[in-house]
Amino acid sequence: MKRFAVGFSYIGAAYCGYQAQGNGDSVAEVLAAAIEKVANHNVKLGCAGRTDKGVHAVLQVVHFDSDANRSEYQWLRGVNANLPEDISVLWVKEVPDDFHARFSARFRSYVYVLNPGANDLFMDRYSWKVGALDIDLMQTAGAMLLGEHDFHAFQSRHCQAEHAIRRVHAVSVFRVGEMVHFEIQANAFVHHMVRKITATLVAIGEGKIQPDVMLSLLQEKNRQRVPGQAPSKGLFLKSVGYADHYGLSLKHESHLTGGRDV
Amino acid sequence: MKRFAVGFSYIGAAYCGYQAQGNGDSVAEVLAAAIEKVANHNVKLGCAGRTDKGVHAVLQVVHFDSDANRSEYQWLRGVNANLPEDISVLWVKEVPDDFHARFSARFRSYVYVLNPGANDLFMDRYSWKVGALDIDLMQTAGAMLLGEHDFHAFQSRHCQAEHAIRRVHAVSVFRVGEMVHFEIQANAFVHHMVRKITATLVAIGEGKIQPDVMLSLLQEKNRQRVPGQAPSKGLFLKSVGYADHYGLSLKHESHLTGGRDV
Repeated sequence: MKRFAVGFSYIGAAYCGYQAQGNGDSVAEVLAAAIEKVANHNVKLGCAGRTDKGVHAVLQVVHFDSDANRSEYQWLRGVNANLPEDISVLWVKEVPDDFHARFSARFRSYVYVLNPGANDLFMDRYSWKVGALDIDLMQTAGAMLLGEHDFHAFQSRHCQAEHAIRRVHAVSVFRVGEMVHFEIQANAFVHHMVRKITATLVAIGEGKIQPDVMLSLLQEKNRQRVPGQAPSKGLFLKSVGYADHYGLSLKHESHLTGGRDV
Repeated sequence: MKRFAVGFSYIGAAYCGYQAQGNGDSVAEVLAAAIEKVANHNVKLGCAGRTDKGVHAVLQVVHFDSDANRSEYQWLRGVNANLPEDISVLWVKEVPDDFHARFSARFRSYVYVLNPGANDLFMDRYSWKVGALDIDLMQTAGAMLLGEHDFHAFQSRHCQAEHAIRRVHAVSVFRVGEMVHFEIQANAFVHHMVRKITATLVAIGEGKIQPDVMLSLLQEKNRQRVPGQAPSKGLFLKSVGYADHYGLSLKHESHLTGGRDV
């Protein structure tokens, strides 16, 4: 039995989310079905980051086990041939048995695309239209997230995690043309954390609340005070971090989410 | 009776093209129906550039006449409220009676988005995936298009224009991140002209034919020698040019088609 890691992208619009709900319209079910056609046996997928309904992935990672006699290239070609046009496998790589897409991951990074006021029909499906943003205020507030905190205030009521303590490694807010990107990397995220933080940052950038509110939210852990939740369509899982010795190709960019004005 | 000009964007994927075919699935029919709901009477649209099935518009311009008592802002809000999410009106402006979206237009400009090899699921619907491109060769060949020429070789067999003589004002080929944009402005275009020129430029950029072929095609006017036709999904009507005194807002950009690496 061999273990394979799979790097892939998807447009989240048509799916109920990554995770199977038994209706067949999850990314996991559609991907597993495509892999099973090539494997000729059932597979079980482990996944790096379970994205919500409507959330996209520039790079998501799963693993599966198979004893089918296929090269990495044959898996890549075969699985892609069985996928719809809104899911695309980027690579398939054999990994040691100790690799687990979820438990071996050292971090996840997300990017949220904000559109502060530009009329751009082509970005409406991939961004959140907001008011004029003060980037400096957002950066000040974003920096307060760095390090280990209890993110209880930004956690969905339905989150099943035992606690909300997570370590944020990096945060950045920057303009790319007419858009504003918010990127965040952490060891892991609780349910709805990125979307609730994004809504808070936007309220700060629009001048509706002070940057210090971010710190109060972390300290007071009061879910009622979070100013909302950004819509899923602007959120992209951007990458997952694994130890170098697995040799996975983890720097993938899309034209929609890449680029940085210097 | 007043005359109004309308600037609007659309995603072409779901439509049979700009022009009405009587099936109700053209951009013209959907837009006219939305205007008629606000006007409370039938309208006839004049249009700057009839785009093909699947071609997008960052900025298309039409005009219509109405004696309904509505401000420009009321037209804008009302028409948008009656449009599907893949058509969006940017502005409505009252214009003199002598304005005609088609006959007053001094030029049209198109941009074609090429993806030379990047795996980018999010751009697949808005670009053509091609081989590695030599931009210098494409620029050399593109420059041969400047000025007045008979574009018979690049004209669809079904084109109803009386002749194919058109004046090209500007051509550019440049990289924007992983993508390559081909922009062309001319007084007018014959049917399929941009897509056939794009396919020729790509064959030149991929090294399959010499840049001089562009000149031979213009001189020999032989449709058989054109190396193909680029797919519609990568093509965007970018703008239309009118005399300044009409006061129309003609510089509109999308994040997908804008930007230029310097």
